[in-house]
Amino acid sequence: MDERNIRILQAVAELGTGSPDEISEHTDIPKSTVHYRLTKLKEDGVVINDLFDVDLEKLGLELTVISEVIAEYDNKYHEEVGEKLTNIEGVNQVYFTMGDTDFIVIAHLSDREMVHRLISDYEEIDEVVRTSSQFVVETVKDEPHPLNDFELETLLETIERGE
Amino acid sequence: MDERNIRILQAVAELGTGSPDEISEHTDIPKSTVHYRLTKLKEDGVVINDLFDVDLEKLGLELTVISEVIAEYDNKYHEEVGEKLTNIEGVNQVYFTMGDTDFIVIAHLSDREMVHRLISDYEEIDEVVRTSSQFVVETVKDEPHPLNDFELETLLETIERGE
Amino acid sequence: MDERNIRILQAVAELGTGSPDEISEHTDIPKSTVHYRLTKLKEDGVVINDLFDVDLEKLGLELTVISEVIAEYDNKYHEEVGEKLTNIEGVNQVYFTMGDTDFIVIAHLSDREMVHRLISDYEEIDEVVRTSSQFVVETVKDEPHPLNDFELETLLETIERGE
Amino acid sequence: MDERNIRILQAVAELGTGSPDEISEHTDIPKSTVHYRLTKLKEDGVVINDLFDVDLEKLGLELTVISEVIAEYDNKYHEEVGEKLTNIEGVNQVYFTMGDTDFIVIAHLSDREMVHRLISDYEEIDEVVRTSSQFVVETVKDEPHPLNDFELETLLETIERGE
Amino acid sequence: MDERNIRILQAVAELGTGSPDEISEHTDIPKSTVHYRLTKLKEDGVVINDLFDVDLEKLGLELTVISEVIAEYDNKYHEEVGEKLTNIEGVNQVYFTMGDTDFIVIAHLSDREMVHRLISDYEEIDEVVRTSSQFVVETVKDEPHPLNDFELETLLETIERGE
Amino acid sequence: MDERNIRILQAVAELGTGSPDEISEHTDIPKSTVHYRLTKLKEDGVVINDLFDVDLEKLGLELTVISEVIAEYDNKYHEEVGEKLTNIEGVNQVYFTMGDTDFIVIAHLSDREMVHRLISDYEEIDEVVRTSSQFVVETVKDEPHPLNDFELETLLETIERGE
Amino acid sequence: MDERNIRILQAVAELGTGSPDEISEHTDIPKSTVHYRLTKLKEDGVVINDLFDVDLEKLGLELTVISEVIAEYDNKYHEEVGEKLTNIEGVNQVYFTMGDTDFIVIAHLSDREMVHRLISDYEEIDEVVRTSSQFVVETVKDEPHPLNDFELETLLETIERGE
Amino acid sequence: MDERNIRILQAVAELGTGSPDEISEHTDIPKSTVHYRLTKLKEDGVVINDLFDVDLEKLGLELTVISEVIAEYDNKYHEEVGEKLTNIEGVNQVYFTMGDTDFIVIAHLSDREMVHRLISDYEEIDEVVRTSSQFVVETVKDEPHPLNDFELETLLETIERGE
Repeated sequence: MDERNIRILQAVAELGTGSPDEISEHTDIPKSTVHYRLTKLKEDGVVINDLFDVDLEKLGLELTVISEVIAEYDNKYHEEVGEKLTNIEGVNQVYFTMGDTDFIVIAHLSDREMVHRLISDYEEIDEVVRTSSQFVVETVKDEPHPLNDFELETLLETIERGE
Repeated sequence: MDERNIRILQAVAELGTGSPDEISEHTDIPKSTVHYRLTKLKEDGVVINDLFDVDLEKLGLELTVISEVIAEYDNKYHEEVGEKLTNIEGVNQVYFTMGDTDFIVIAHLSDREMVHRLISDYEEIDEVVRTSSQFVVETVKDEPHPLNDFELETLLETIERGE
Repeated sequence: MDERNIRILQAVAELGTGSPDEISEHTDIPKSTVHYRLTKLKEDGVVINDLFDVDLEKLGLELTVISEVIAEYDNKYHEEVGEKLTNIEGVNQVYFTMGDTDFIVIAHLSDREMVHRLISDYEEIDEVVRTSSQFVVETVKDEPHPLNDFELETLLETIERGE
Repeated sequence: MDERNIRILQAVAELGTGSPDEISEHTDIPKSTVHYRLTKLKEDGVVINDLFDVDLEKLGLELTVISEVIAEYDNKYHEEVGEKLTNIEGVNQVYFTMGDTDFIVIAHLSDREMVHRLISDYEEIDEVVRTSSQFVVETVKDEPHPLNDFELETLLETIERGE
Repeated sequence: MDERNIRILQAVAELGTGSPDEISEHTDIPKSTVHYRLTKLKEDGVVINDLFDVDLEKLGLELTVISEVIAEYDNKYHEEVGEKLTNIEGVNQVYFTMGDTDFIVIAHLSDREMVHRLISDYEEIDEVVRTSSQFVVETVKDEPHPLNDFELETLLETIERGE
Repeated sequence: MDERNIRILQAVAELGTGSPDEISEHTDIPKSTVHYRLTKLKEDGVVINDLFDVDLEKLGLELTVISEVIAEYDNKYHEEVGEKLTNIEGVNQVYFTMGDTDFIVIAHLSDREMVHRLISDYEEIDEVVRTSSQFVVETVKDEPHPLNDFELETLLETIERGE
Repeated sequence: MDERNIRILQAVAELGTGSPDEISEHTDIPKSTVHYRLTKLKEDGVVINDLFDVDLEKLGLELTVISEVIAEYDNKYHEEVGEKLTNIEGVNQVYFTMGDTDFIVIAHLSDREMVHRLISDYEEIDEVVRTSSQFVVETVKDEPHPLNDFELETLLETIERGE
Repeated sequence: MDERNIRILQAVAELGTGSPDEISEHTDIPKSTVHYRLTKLKEDGVVINDLFDVDLEKLGLELTVISEVIAEYDNKYHEEVGEKLTNIEGVNQVYFTMGDTDFIVIAHLSDREMVHRLISDYEEIDEVVRTSSQFVVETVKDEPHPLNDFELETLLETIERGE
């Protein structure tokens, strides 16, 4: 993995396309290089399929941390705090829930130094009162395409009920 | 949304490609129809981008439930239970963690009836001792492409440290 | 309060009507007596309004206890346990919830002896693993007619959204 | 369900009577219309019995939420906070308890938007420090007439002990 | 029970003696009356033995409440708060502990009104942040004379080890 | 402190009297010795007053431990378990409560060895599922005579309300 | 770090001495090599001082995990379980406590694979019912010589009080 | 144990050496006395081995307390609070963790008075919001030399993986 590979993969994610043209324009990397590199990344298994799903472990993002975040209770606070959490590097999912905890946050990180930084970033949000984080020992399932979670019939029933 | 659309979208997710050829072969829906339908789904915003990310709300999967699952404590139990949780319909993510809870499960569901079914499916796993589920009031962030969560420099530093 | 009054009030609750005819037939208390007694109970404030809402304190049911009930985790267990809880004397509401607790139960009781009995009745349900009960210091609101909880506009909006 | 039906049902709940005369006067809907509508609502099962109990599901109020509310600890705070909770739309019961939680609140709501609003209404009460809400998966019992919760003998004993 | 009886019993408790002379002097109730009354109280079982232990139930103090009290964390706070708790009417024992809770308080009360008052008294202590109280369903043991809790040999061993 | 002193003090506690006659008969220690010893114990402050309250610290019982005990949930279990807890040496109070914990137990102990023994005694009760014990850092109040906890007026009011 | 270094350092720890003679005899590594290696390890900062304290990070043991372990409640169980915990590789400290948790365990580990193994080792102990582990973000203090934790005067006072 | 012994042992711990020369210089105790005393301390089992590990019980430090410390949540707070905790007398280990608790602190103490002092020292740290401490009933393992916790092969594997 070098800088070019990462810039190309980030362009894919940001632009929402695998088109070498658009990626080339966005990154100033020649189109043929983009094409060559993406082919190579697929061969190496970093890019998993045509939908450009990536293998996090191969990218060095092998730690997953799940945090519960409790914030000061104030009018509309959850929108502001939610957005601040969203902007922390490595944070992949932020849920505002009805239970004991205000937010559940899932982050992908590469090493202990990034964990330190995550905790420090939480501390820098004024409204945050307390956090509790735990390491994931094993990611048993993390399906990027939720439609794979269902049988066809279930989705059809759902649509019928919803009409 | 009709059955054909759903079959096409599931094929995309399952095959990991948006190629009309492969989807047509997998679904027995004529290639031209596949092409036409996918174009229409993009126009309608159900399919969001070239990477075939879908809008869950538009598909009627508007409820997100986060469950904590505690299982009987036994040698290697977490592998078996983890797999059973993985197979429950609607379950999108399953994490085995080091904290108070054994598993954290995230599911996308369409309505109250599916919530009932989720809870019943948990009950049917023998090793499961207790579950606690909560509704997500608002999904503040759910980024399908983790590379969007990082600055370029951070990823470069990470790679350097890892070498 | 004597036995006749209680039999009449129970007949109202059971039959879902304040009709002296039906109550008389159900209780074998002469219709004129039913009529006279109900009028008297309204004058005394035991029966609060034409909808035959009763004043629990005047009936001696002045204690309210809220219990959390945890039951053995098993296939379909919640239906059986739910029904058993429902049949305990004094139990007024039983909710099966998604949170840490399986059931939340609200009971109206008259005195310490009935509290003892409630706890013993919980203990007699085999599937019940643990209960935690607390006294209500003050019932700030207990509205028998939920429509009183809403503004007209809210209900109208609700209906529109639901269509 | 249209506006007239709702206005009539709210008048029943507010006035505590099913008398077409009083309802007509309160709502400015002609008495004969009131009479006709109530008869129809009974036939349709929205109004369940002569005591004018209503079927919440048929009215679109199919969600029940139970919240634990913790408020700032201050002299007499529980009266003020209790009243503010009472005034939130959809809130049906408010209990001030002796346990870990200050208030237990039960609300009936129609859909996700109303859940959002409930959470926001809690946030707007200054003294509220934290809330934790959970969905009811199934209302196993919610008896509007507590006398149905008892055997006749039990109530008689209760009266005797109380004297 | 009338005022004189209570004044006599309180004098016993306060002076730490059952001597009619001292009690008479303290209460201005004639010595012979003191004598007569104490004899009668023993006959009635209100006073249990020569050590003037009393039967709380017979005195109408039939409720026991155990409260956990958490106070603001500040230098030496526990001495001040401890003393304030000590002065609340009905409070019988106050323990400052090393665990999650700052204080554990045991109170004897007569009825619901006194429970209200206890909760209000807690609220009036500025440093108190949160309390959680629960009713005792049954006092299985409350031995006023701790020496009854031991075998003779145990106490002898204890003394030997302590030397 | 020697064996004779302890036997005399235990006789006081067990017989509920300070009468040298009865103590002598119960202990086979000559009456004059009993008399002399009790006088001496009062002078030394081990016996605090005429009601024969003792100073636990002077008796070497300087540790107080408060335990929460959770037992198997079964029909009538609380009576049997309650009695077993009652019989553990050093256990002074046992309360069966309505809250999260089944029993709250207060024990007076002399040293670490007795703490070990207490924990072991809990473990030997089959029905006990879990215990959590904590040391009391400071006994702020432990009033042997509950009447000292009240103002005269409060007790009078209480009596009036109870009639 | 190679095998010889590790064997020498383990011999130091096991034998409780830094004597090249004894280490040589124990490891079959020539005495002069032992001497040379130890000198080199001190120069490199792996061995910190004359007392042969080692730098865990330099040895690759950079993760610290603190686990709470709850075991089946049974007569004398804590001795057996305690010993089994003691024998798990990497486990450095095991405390049997009086609080909610039975054991608190501190382990030093090198990487994620060893964390997996630790969790699996817990699972293999039959009596263990539940564990909850958390990563240490930063070891602020870990003093191998407890006497460094005290002022001289404090220790002197302690001795005086103990006599 | 007298003052000289303690001063010598503290010098060993502070200087990280058992060299009589250096200890003599540091303490102004003649070298021959240092030598003689250390030999005697080894014979008495206070000093356990050549690495000068000491027997805490023989030094009168027989109590171990584990505290959970929660501090105000603020930018970089954990460094400042961590250092303050480090400086409390008797505190041996301080861990900043990712879980519910901010710090886990382990202290060795001699008696109840030192426990009081520890709790007071916590209270004097402004940022500390809450602490919960528990006694260790039995220290099952506390290995001063972590290399004793591992098999040779495990350490060798670890080194290989780390390279």
